[in-house]
Amino acid sequence: MNPLSLNQRTTKSWTVAQAVDGCVRHGLEAVGLWREEVAEQGLAASAKLVRAAGLRVSSLCRGGFMTAAASLDDNRRAVDEAAELGAACLVLVVGGLPGVIPGRPLGDGAGVSRDLAGARERVAEALAELAPYAGERNVRLALEPLHPIYCPDRAVVSTLGQALDLAMPYPGEQVGVVVDTFHVWWDPQVFEQIARAGERIASYQVCDYLHPLPADVLLGRGMMGDGVIDFPPITRAVLAAGYTGDVEVEIFNADIWAADPDEVVASMKRRYAEVVG
Amino acid sequence: MNPLSLNQRTTKSWTVAQAVDGCVRHGLEAVGLWREEVAEQGLAASAKLVRAAGLRVSSLCRGGFMTAAASLDDNRRAVDEAAELGAACLVLVVGGLPGVIPGRPLGDGAGVSRDLAGARERVAEALAELAPYAGERNVRLALEPLHPIYCPDRAVVSTLGQALDLAMPYPGEQVGVVVDTFHVWWDPQVFEQIARAGERIASYQVCDYLHPLPADVLLGRGMMGDGVIDFPPITRAVLAAGYTGDVEVEIFNADIWAADPDEVVASMKRRYAEVVG
Repeated sequence: MNPLSLNQRTTKSWTVAQAVDGCVRHGLEAVGLWREEVAEQGLAASAKLVRAAGLRVSSLCRGGFMTAAASLDDNRRAVDEAAELGAACLVLVVGGLPGVIPGRPLGDGAGVSRDLAGARERVAEALAELAPYAGERNVRLALEPLHPIYCPDRAVVSTLGQALDLAMPYPGEQVGVVVDTFHVWWDPQVFEQIARAGERIASYQVCDYLHPLPADVLLGRGMMGDGVIDFPPITRAVLAAGYTGDVEVEIFNADIWAADPDEVVASMKRRYAEVVG
Repeated sequence: MNPLSLNQRTTKSWTVAQAVDGCVRHGLEAVGLWREEVAEQGLAASAKLVRAAGLRVSSLCRGGFMTAAASLDDNRRAVDEAAELGAACLVLVVGGLPGVIPGRPLGDGAGVSRDLAGARERVAEALAELAPYAGERNVRLALEPLHPIYCPDRAVVSTLGQALDLAMPYPGEQVGVVVDTFHVWWDPQVFEQIARAGERIASYQVCDYLHPLPADVLLGRGMMGDGVIDFPPITRAVLAAGYTGDVEVEIFNADIWAADPDEVVASMKRRYAEVVG
């Protein structure tokens, strides 16, 4: 199996320094970082920490939200940060319907666009501006399709096929895609699209899909084995497509966030071996 | 615009007799019935009521749950009921992963199958048994793809394209599909698949997609205009595909169920004219 990587949001209470130490302590070779935590630690300090520890940065999360006005400057900064960290990719969550604020109720709907097709065009246009910038800095963008439940507020890109349609006009080393089991497990075309993706797969992220989802659907990601996903067929397809990178575990889950991070990492290693491969 | 039909679950407190009266009172030509309410009223009595009122039965909800063992007998009964009611179609919600009970937590996962591909095969096999039976009784089966959030417990058929793949081996008058805006609005292939469906569209159901969904996601269906769906492009596509049937409004929503049914029907008529066409 490919090496396991800890996405630092799985151990949400840990700083970059603590996550780096944790990876070393548990014998992991890679870590997935988040921009907010990197900013708290300091960008240069974070880069130094991961290099000193000999870790790979399997991804930087995240840029995107390209359906909102004026996202380009922030996305360029995210590319610069990914370059400095030497991240294998910059994950892009493309954004929802314009005017819908992630995690907030729609309210009376004033100021909200229902033009889904238009929002999707906006993503394509924003990508056309960002991709060359990323290319010049040797940063690989990774478009992440999100489960359709997040279409209103987080990602109008809902399937792997759709992410690939957006990525295909660019060189594979410039724009790839994320395969995240939580988001794609239900998709009747997932195996066909993983095969089509081939070496465009920039990141393979695993976590389980809990049922039912909690009221805050963002926190419905579970430890592998705690939900409904059958991992081995998806893992085999991703490896058969040529993916040789790290496999990140990214879990947003109130119970896991409340647990001792060292126990979470130990449990993650065990479940990865038992359930995912 | 096509005639409007009241799916009786929108006015949940009404019996079949009350729903039939309500449709007549509000000048509607069609009603969508549910098996449970038909059983309470009596099958023969329900058939008599709708005929005496001169209403069309735009659909009977619902058969399906074909991923569970021993569903065939019940589905044959549903076909017989649809025949007696003269329903335009029998809606099939195909069922989720075997062992997952709709609306119930997964618990420790014991007895739950994660074999999604196997569950989908089971649907195809069950359809092969049911379709000829329906054909002999001139009942049209209508496969309903459900939003992927219902994949674990209610429908392993999640996209219109997937429903069409299942339907295509059969004559169109024997197996059609349901286009329900709540379930398909996010699908990047929806327009292409509606065109592909053509006269396979056995039912067009409308309601809005609320954001965020309530904790019980089954009740996230809203009155048209209260959510994030842009109806006109979907309606135009369904009509362009050749759909000439009734348009059903089917809303599961705690607030709407608590309201006066006559006001709900009046509001539904107004919103249909303002928002859907």
